[in-house]
Amino acid sequence: MRLSEETIRNRLECWPVARLATAAADGRPQQVPIVFAYVAGRLWSPIDGKPKSGRELERVRNLRARPDSSLLLDEYTSDWSRLWWIRIDATGEVFEADRVSESADFAAVTTALQEKYPQYRETPMLGRTPQLIAFRIVRIRSWTGAGPSK
Amino acid sequence: MRLSEETIRNRLECWPVARLATAAADGRPQQVPIVFAYVAGRLWSPIDGKPKSGRELERVRNLRARPDSSLLLDEYTSDWSRLWWIRIDATGEVFEADRVSESADFAAVTTALQEKYPQYRETPMLGRTPQLIAFRIVRIRSWTGAGPSK
Repeated sequence: MRLSEETIRNRLECWPVARLATAAADGRPQQVPIVFAYVAGRLWSPIDGKPKSGRELERVRNLRARPDSSLLLDEYTSDWSRLWWIRIDATGEVFEADRVSESADFAAVTTALQEKYPQYRETPMLGRTPQLIAFRIVRIRSWTGAGPSK
Repeated sequence: MRLSEETIRNRLECWPVARLATAAADGRPQQVPIVFAYVAGRLWSPIDGKPKSGRELERVRNLRARPDSSLLLDEYTSDWSRLWWIRIDATGEVFEADRVSESADFAAVTTALQEKYPQYRETPMLGRTPQLIAFRIVRIRSWTGAGPSK
């Protein structure tokens, strides 16, 4: 079964985490969990102040070379009749430093992130080098183990 | 911070879900959540009896063409100081139909899956065409937002 469009929209707006897959230079897929806000039809994810290695992040390097990416929203639960996933084929664009604020949606995005994640009262939303990734949706597929779409 | 080897081993044994990324023919990453058991140093995932589209699964088709894959074990929690992830670069091998039982570890794998997932009392562990994917670990990286590794 697929999820209804209404459910998909709701999950895009409310689900707190996505798993991002990008392709490394040699084509190997690489994954990392990300937070995001759904604004103006795109999913926006900040390179925020959670502890990082300090080097440029793999996801950023990968997306610069190849924007094709995958976002997975899903819920694991021991009740397998309630499993669901939403898979998004996307193209990711990295907005950096001064270019961040050039994005027309920047104010709306930071507001949406602040509202969705109260954690940003403690954790800086943008690191020392502000970076924001915008994912444009290319295709959405969904699945649920449940009967009627809900 | 990295996770300790002991924590990583414990998560490989006990964590109920991994997100799998494979590469499609055109190189685009594709993701799906999977269940798995950690046996003999490999992660084993059955193509089980949860509802499926009926066509050959993308993950199987992708892995046959290109075994390079990524497995992500992670936990999202609203307490960001407790976030963690384990990223596994892996090569996936698909065991099909009669070849499934050729795998030396087959009995150990089905036992481990049954013990880890009581859901297999209800859900068939293998679909009409038995398939089992074995992931050999190439490299493990880990991260946690927590202070001392725990």
